[in-house]
Amino acid sequence: MTSMTESLITFQPMGRRIPFENGGTVLEAAHAAGIQLHAVCGGKGLCGKCKVQVRGYESYTEEETKFFSTDELEQGFRLACQVIIDRNLTVYIPEKSIVRKQRILVEGVTRQIVLDPNVQKIFLKLPKPTLEDQRTDIGRIRDSIEPEISRVSIEALDELPSVLRDSDFEVTLVLLGSELAGCEQGDTSQQNYGAAFDIGTTTVVGYLVDLTTGEELAVCARMNPQISFGDDVISRINFGQARENLEKLTNSLKACLLEIIDELSEKANVSTDEIYELSIAGNAVMHHLFLGISPRSLAVAPYVPVVKESLSVRSDLYGKRMYVLPIIAGFVGADTVADLVAYPFDHRLRMLIDIGTNCEVALGTKDHILACSAAAGPAFEGMHIKHGMRAAPGAIEEIEIDDDVTVKTIDDEKPQGIAGSGLISATAEMVKWGIIDSSGRLQRDHRFSSRIQDEQFMLTDTISLTQKDLREIQLAKGAIFAAQQILLKTYGAEVTDLEEIVLAGAFGSYIPKESAKMIGLIFDLPTENIKSIGNAAGVGAKLCLLSKAEREQAKDISEAVEYIELSSRADFQQEFMDAMYFPHSHMELFPLVKRILSETSPYFAE
Amino acid sequence: MTSMTESLITFQPMGRRIPFENGGTVLEAAHAAGIQLHAVCGGKGLCGKCKVQVRGYESYTEEETKFFSTDELEQGFRLACQVIIDRNLTVYIPEKSIVRKQRILVEGVTRQIVLDPNVQKIFLKLPKPTLEDQRTDIGRIRDSIEPEISRVSIEALDELPSVLRDSDFEVTLVLLGSELAGCEQGDTSQQNYGAAFDIGTTTVVGYLVDLTTGEELAVCARMNPQISFGDDVISRINFGQARENLEKLTNSLKACLLEIIDELSEKANVSTDEIYELSIAGNAVMHHLFLGISPRSLAVAPYVPVVKESLSVRSDLYGKRMYVLPIIAGFVGADTVADLVAYPFDHRLRMLIDIGTNCEVALGTKDHILACSAAAGPAFEGMHIKHGMRAAPGAIEEIEIDDDVTVKTIDDEKPQGIAGSGLISATAEMVKWGIIDSSGRLQRDHRFSSRIQDEQFMLTDTISLTQKDLREIQLAKGAIFAAQQILLKTYGAEVTDLEEIVLAGAFGSYIPKESAKMIGLIFDLPTENIKSIGNAAGVGAKLCLLSKAEREQAKDISEAVEYIELSSRADFQQEFMDAMYFPHSHMELFPLVKRILSETSPYFAE
Ligand code: FES
Ligand code: FES
Repeated sequence: MTSMTESLITFQPMGRRIPFENGGTVLEAAHAAGIQLHAVCGGKGLCGKCKVQVRGYESYTEEETKFFSTDELEQGFRLACQVIIDRNLTVYIPEKSIVRKQRILVEGVTRQIVLDPNVQKIFLKLPKPTLEDQRTDIGRIRDSIEPEISRVSIEALDELPSVLRDSDFEVTLVLLGSELAGCEQGDTSQQNYGAAFDIGTTTVVGYLVDLTTGEELAVCARMNPQISFGDDVISRINFGQARENLEKLTNSLKACLLEIIDELSEKANVSTDEIYELSIAGNAVMHHLFLGISPRSLAVAPYVPVVKESLSVRSDLYGKRMYVLPIIAGFVGADTVADLVAYPFDHRLRMLIDIGTNCEVALGTKDHILACSAAAGPAFEGMHIKHGMRAAPGAIEEIEIDDDVTVKTIDDEKPQGIAGSGLISATAEMVKWGIIDSSGRLQRDHRFSSRIQDEQFMLTDTISLTQKDLREIQLAKGAIFAAQQILLKTYGAEVTDLEEIVLAGAFGSYIPKESAKMIGLIFDLPTENIKSIGNAAGVGAKLCLLSKAEREQAKDISEAVEYIELSSRADFQQEFMDAMYFPHSHMELFPLVKRILSETSPYFAE
Repeated sequence: MTSMTESLITFQPMGRRIPFENGGTVLEAAHAAGIQLHAVCGGKGLCGKCKVQVRGYESYTEEETKFFSTDELEQGFRLACQVIIDRNLTVYIPEKSIVRKQRILVEGVTRQIVLDPNVQKIFLKLPKPTLEDQRTDIGRIRDSIEPEISRVSIEALDELPSVLRDSDFEVTLVLLGSELAGCEQGDTSQQNYGAAFDIGTTTVVGYLVDLTTGEELAVCARMNPQISFGDDVISRINFGQARENLEKLTNSLKACLLEIIDELSEKANVSTDEIYELSIAGNAVMHHLFLGISPRSLAVAPYVPVVKESLSVRSDLYGKRMYVLPIIAGFVGADTVADLVAYPFDHRLRMLIDIGTNCEVALGTKDHILACSAAAGPAFEGMHIKHGMRAAPGAIEEIEIDDDVTVKTIDDEKPQGIAGSGLISATAEMVKWGIIDSSGRLQRDHRFSSRIQDEQFMLTDTISLTQKDLREIQLAKGAIFAAQQILLKTYGAEVTDLEEIVLAGAFGSYIPKESAKMIGLIFDLPTENIKSIGNAAGVGAKLCLLSKAEREQAKDISEAVEYIELSSRADFQQEFMDAMYFPHSHMELFPLVKRILSETSPYFAE
């Protein structure tokens, strides 16, 4: 079927065959056949990415001798962009030469993304300047790659002439977006790393990511050092009003991130020089405080942030470029945006709850999302709770009450205190067995009454849950549930419309779902419709390192999500009070829980 | 002629009248009438720029009360964008409200340019956040101005919340291109300054410019401190090969620019905080060394620069943004680009000669320009000349020989030495009166023979021109003239096609034109066709501060000018040797000079 001026090109191992014009290149033919080959130099024979093997094609270009040994040339290895079609050819394409979508596995969610990081490293064997070729160093580079360079950093300019000449013009370019940010001797294109951060009010988590594979190489978590200036966002906002305090807050956080970067690079044995970009997600207050932006505007109604959109700036963390995810509103931050990037909403009606010191709730489908924020306080992180502690070995994470009270600790160590999940579990068991009533008051007429001592319930010989602890839990869960209720009402939906509850946040994954429903922390959905996606904010920040398309996603989310300010809602106080009951003052909202309780607790008997 | 839904709007004092739809604004009507009013907020009543006076229009908006007193409102002052047309109106437009082209007077050249600096300062009275208006600070600003903001600097973000709230939301924005770079309390829009620099091999000149008027407020010149590392570009290139030397070169230049900035701001009584942008023109070597770019690539053929295009970067000169003009080639730099910006070529064939330690020559018309560079050396700047000195009080700048030898010094002070112009003048007089012959050798058979002592000619009792000095002058002018010859040949033109010679450079203005022709420094054109345009490189740098269009010009020039590398020309040596003669070994090239000499000097008798 081919005319005199066409040849048949067969691609193996895919077995695809197409006719293609003589005079064209094998690279062009491959694209025409729907096979996308790597070709960062745009087919100029400079990047060596488009390697193929061709049968019985003797000639080769000077460029090809730079990438192949004589042996390899004899075996038919060629650069697809250099092979001019003049006869029927069979072309074998090695796996490595093909552009593929990558399946990225992250905790809780698996997403298939195109690995297309903002940081690109391109290895090139450049032609050297001659009397006939007097292009500038930058001009030479511009002409040799496909991606357009719109800016050149002054650092890149400063190192360029020496790097080029010391490496005999075989260099790896570092592109950040369309900026030429650096230039390294030889082929370092495989050493390309980024670090993603989730800056929470209480915890900062960093991830080291290999940008060439998408793999996570190390994780490192630290306490947010700002804790010494205040437990929750409100106290930090107040503290940060004064210029010198703001500096303290900002600097402590920067020092923390630097430590994390050092630890990550040590753990993964990666030089900090090879980390080219940071991606930062944090709630709105952390966002401002980290960037050194005064939180003044977040202190007074209507709580407007100074800036919502994402920022790409040079940090003073080793001078690395930094992508800061966009935020949604004064109290719904980049962590929520990152959650939604990690676990994109589809057509089903979903409620996403990111439980931290500040709790963000989002409700909707891909077409319309509402979000709000509830000041839960740090109770679930063990603060203000008599025997509260962080989720560390020895922390009680589960409690079972039947004949006796059984506690399960992390790593089965001797009980040291109660973790957030333990608090929820204990409270749920106490509600279930009538140790507390619906209003949260400790009761004495049950078989564990001997464990009630001085307004506290002894879980073990030494560890107890006090009446005051229970009040803290009621306040926290009341705020979180009221937020969910208001969103549902505003959306104009019923509980029965809700198809999925998604629990996010470092702590979210450990929440015992049955217990969470029992105490009325979340709506009473069948457990199979409740999903834990772990620290999705960190995942979202990682995805934004790995793919520019995910940054577009983040932008769209930040613009599209509708923010609901709870403090401006006349019905919030009522909802909050109703939600402080266990599970709720309107029992009809919790039909599944109600059925259980009616059998186990005297306070819920029909 | 107006329908029911149209009214007649009369604009005074221009007396223009048009019908315009009711419901439209006076601002829209003015534009429709071809009268361009200032309107940086795009007609939102926030910038107060569109002030007009309207007869008998009682109502006014809340925005207008922010800009006018009750008295003014009663006198009919209004914001054109707020006046809704509902009847025939007569509108008086104050001078200040109209956008005009500005005539910018600069030394030597007057250009009419649209004042459109990259730095824009916009004063706004912003609406405050309320429960109904929860826009972010940045969103609020974006919505309030016409120019689009594509980036926000982290510094602007950091100061924004406090500046807005401390100034009751009446602020002046600082835009650098489309970047929001800063925010100041109150109306500071009239304090908007920039500094332009011409970095020469020997001299650095700085200019302070008022970006709201185009006026030059102060000038300050300093020796280039790199002189202590080498006189000319070649020795600096060699010295700058080693990293630590490069740093010395770069840092000394930065320190020099900082001193100049300080002096400029002191002279003009302008705070350095109010200088928002620097514009830098320099030859290619200065360009690289100033930016800290290794001059390695300029050390070996084919002498490619690392980068040609303009750069917009943050400097470490008080952290100011800096626009660096583009260059043309390894030895034709931003100074030449700036010359051509200051004095754009038109349809006539022109030769532009920028005489400095390095001499750049450009030839052509607006359609095609050739350029090259000649290593003239610093002789005309007084270096390597026995009694050479810079153009300072007491420097001989002119010599006349008739009955006696008369010297004229700068400021008529006691002669201290010879300036560049004096060198040319003295040499010309000596050629004219046969004190030297065509080959430059000192002769003794003339009436001033008593002034010849030890191979030198005494200009005064103490100041002389030596045979060695004359050789330096011959080398310098030989190189400069050979460059002109080669360009003319390459262009395919004859001397007779040449319509104008333009002398640029700080020194260029002081060159005595008749003498320059007499010694063969420039072609023998009628004096009225020889023009001095002064330090055009500085002027070009200033224009680039004042107008973005001029930056576009600079870009086009840098891309379009064709560079001729003299060292690769086989005919250069011959041209150079021929040009070392006074005026030239081919006398027919200098018909006017020849006629004079044939009457005054025995060495040129017919
Ligand atoms: S595309 Fe073939 S070598 Fe780059
Ligand atoms: S255009 Fe009228 S106030 Fe800005």
